[in-house]
Parts: sequence; structure tokens; C-alpha cells
Amino acid sequence: MNRKLKNILLKIEYDGTDYKGWQTQRVFGSRSKTKTIQQTLENVLIKILKEPVKLFASGRTDSGVHAQGQIANFKTHTQIPLTKLKIALNSLLPCDIRIKTVKQVGLDFHARYDAKSKVYQYAILNKSEHSVFTRNFSTHIRYPLDIGLMRKEARAFLGKHDFKSFQASDKRVRNSVRTIKMISVKKQRGYIYIDICADGFVYNMVRNIVGTLIEVGRGKLQAGSIKRILKAANRKYAGPTASARGLRLLKVNYT
Amino acid sequence: MNRKLKNILLKIEYDGTDYKGWQTQRVFGSRSKTKTIQQTLENVLIKILKEPVKLFASGRTDSGVHAQGQIANFKTHTQIPLTKLKIALNSLLPCDIRIKTVKQVGLDFHARYDAKSKVYQYAILNKSEHSVFTRNFSTHIRYPLDIGLMRKEARAFLGKHDFKSFQASDKRVRNSVRTIKMISVKKQRGYIYIDICADGFVYNMVRNIVGTLIEVGRGKLQAGSIKRILKAANRKYAGPTASARGLRLLKVNYT
Repeated sequence: MNRKLKNILLKIEYDGTDYKGWQTQRVFGSRSKTKTIQQTLENVLIKILKEPVKLFASGRTDSGVHAQGQIANFKTHTQIPLTKLKIALNSLLPCDIRIKTVKQVGLDFHARYDAKSKVYQYAILNKSEHSVFTRNFSTHIRYPLDIGLMRKEARAFLGKHDFKSFQASDKRVRNSVRTIKMISVKKQRGYIYIDICADGFVYNMVRNIVGTLIEVGRGKLQAGSIKRILKAANRKYAGPTASARGLRLLKVNYT
Repeated sequence: MNRKLKNILLKIEYDGTDYKGWQTQRVFGSRSKTKTIQQTLENVLIKILKEPVKLFASGRTDSGVHAQGQIANFKTHTQIPLTKLKIALNSLLPCDIRIKTVKQVGLDFHARYDAKSKVYQYAILNKSEHSVFTRNFSTHIRYPLDIGLMRKEARAFLGKHDFKSFQASDKRVRNSVRTIKMISVKKQRGYIYIDICADGFVYNMVRNIVGTLIEVGRGKLQAGSIKRILKAANRKYAGPTASARGLRLLKVNYT
């Protein structure tokens, strides 16, 4: 029997609310959530494929962060047709994780190393009360935000910068230079969406950028602040870390 | 001290997922959910106002059904300013119930008896997989639905009809004549929304109408079916009851 090795790509959507993130991490503090997305997926894959499976994602998402288009790959000798595999996965997975695409890719494809850029979206509901329908997928900011100024200041993030000021301060020192290819601040039906496309992200980068832009929007930081904070290369100058619930990994680009 | 009686109107939004509906009802079967929206709200009101409170809603919503604009009223002698009352309510209520408006109305206003019509919206996600983000607020239908035919057939519901065929069969026989003032079937980003405005609704009416229109959309019921089913005045001719999670009370009209 010729059971050739295959490399399978999964496009995954998940509601991260009840998960400790993509991958089990050394987390100091709360241990209330124990399950991870990766573990849940691998357990179901092993059950279906009846062989050991190791999933590689485009990157980790933190505890509580969501994904609309997370990409992961794994190698397998299975002969189950891919359409059947997708159905089997979605019928065994909990309803807060869905497989949107299953496809075979070249054996050398790696979801993380081959990713050229990733797009994250942050959702803020800027109304007097939060919505019960999106409360797990957005952050609620009651006070009015100056979108125009946020949009103007956001431009300072564009391009190649040292993002040390926007990196979680408890992280080991390492290269924090990244390139932001696109950043947009748009308003839609009471929500403010901040989209960021970059070649990579340091730990908590999007949430720290958003927390700082919120400070700009409410007038706590003046025009020109972002440029100054980037230059300072010190976490203490940037704004607070925005809540995980507003963040989702929108898309991973491989070209 | 002159503490005049006031009549207070509340506009309420709720995620009905974890509730047994607006009001405790005699439910046969599952008893897993015990809390109701009304009970939760009354408990919080009593805590704030320190007097007995009886809430009157525009109508009950069933177990698992949501509301974007439920209206209720209650009488009180409180002297707490209404803006403070709103803040107090939202800070004590669980995050799946939000008070959007608090306002004083005439003493003779009654949320139920004065309602001229109500608008319900039903959301169907018509894609190969359900969305993790709207899974509690929509029903997932995998097979393709013919929206054109659904829209055409829906017109037969317009106007004054006996909705016995669309009334839960276990309900006591009573007047099941209602007037549907508006019904629309629209497609938006993968979702099909069915909006229905009527002067009143018999038990399970929207969910039975939607369940029947889904049968139309998937080709199980032919053109002309709705007219025939309405005429039959017998629950067994209509389609199945669509799931509660897709339904929300959108608006109550008082003019």
C-alpha cells in the first residue's frame, strides 16, 4: 500500500474566549483556562487520522484572542479524502472552532516560516453601552474618541520601526524591529476597526498599539505622540494594553 | 416629602442564550435553564430602588430568543435621576443584559397593551460552515436556499390571516388571527435575514414561518404552498419550528 506523506493546510476560525490561546505557554498568573486551540485541534486530528499529528500555525494567538483566518499545517499519511476530513473535523470539534478550508500543499510549505505578513483587526464599540451580541468580540469605550486624530497618528506606525515601546515589558529582550505595511482606522455602525498588516508582531504589539491609539482618541496623548513613543523605545511611554477580546487574526498572507 | 408615582420605560437588549426566556413559564421538558430576563431585571431594580417592582414587557420572548429593543415599564416612587438609574442598572446587571434607554412616560402607558406592532428578525447563515462569532445569534443552513422563491412565497403572509397553521400545536385553542404588516427576506454577506412586523404573534409564529420558508428555499415546498398552508389552518402542514437562537425581537412600535 502506497501511503505517501501529505502536507495539509487548514484555515481555522475560532472564538478564543474560553481558550488559553493557540499554544500552551508559560503563563504567570491566572490558570483558570487550561485548554488551548492547538491541543483541541490535535486531539481531534489524532482521533480521525489514528496517527500522531503535530500542527504548525502561522503564529500563536494569546489567551482570549480570536481568529477568522488562522492558518496551520500538518503532515499525514492519511488516505481520507480532504472533503471528508473537513466534515469529520467540524463534526468532532466544539462549536467555537470551525475549519473553513482543508487543502493539500507542497511538502515544504510551513504555515509559520512561509507567512509573508499577517493582518489583525481590533474592534472597539464606541457607544454609551456595550452590545450583548458582540461583547466577546469587541472592547467597549464609553467616552467619545477622535477618529480623525487616531487615523492621523496611526500613520506614524507605517514602515520599519523598533517596536520596543509596544512590546510587553516582561518579555526577554530580542529583536523588536518590525515593518507595518498597512494600518487603518475606520468607523462602521458605532464600531471603530483598527486593521494592521505587518511582516511580524512582537508580543502584545497590536493590543499596545490600540491602547495607545485610544489614549490619542480620548485626548490624553497629543498629535506627534506616536513618533515620540516609537523613538523612546521604552514600554512605559506607550498606552495600556487593550483587552484581548477585541482582537482577531484576520488573515495570513503567503505572497 | 412628596414622592410622586412615576412610570418608567426601559429599552432592553439581551442575549437570551442562557435564559429561559423573558418570563417564567410552565415549560414541559428541559429544566436546565432556570433564570429569566424579567426575574434578573426585577431583582436588580429592587436592589436599587429598595421597593417592590413589577415589570411589564411588550411581550414574552421564549427560551433562547434574543432582544435588541425589548420595551418594558414599571411604576416607582424613586427620586433617583434617570441617568443615574441607567448607570446603576448596567453596572449591576450581567453583561448579557443591557439597558439602552431609561425614560419617564405617562402613568397610563403600558408596554404590552399600548404596543401597536412588533418587529422580529430571524438570521440564517447560509454557508458551508457556521460562524463561531454569530453561532448563538443565527441558525446555520448548509444547503443552498432559493432566496427569490422564499421572498415571493413570503408575500402570501402579508395582511390579516388565521395563523393556526403556524401556531405551536400544544397551545390551547384561542384566536389565532393576526395581521402581518411587513415581511422581508434579504441577503447580506452570507446571512439571510427575515424581518416580520405584525400587530401580534401567536406562540412560535415567527419560528414556524421561518421553518416553512426554509422548506420553500430548499425546494421541499413548491410555489403557492404558503397560501395553501394558511388556508389549511392546521399546524401539521407547515414546516418545522426554526431554532430559537436565530430569533431576536428587533423593535416595538407604539405609533
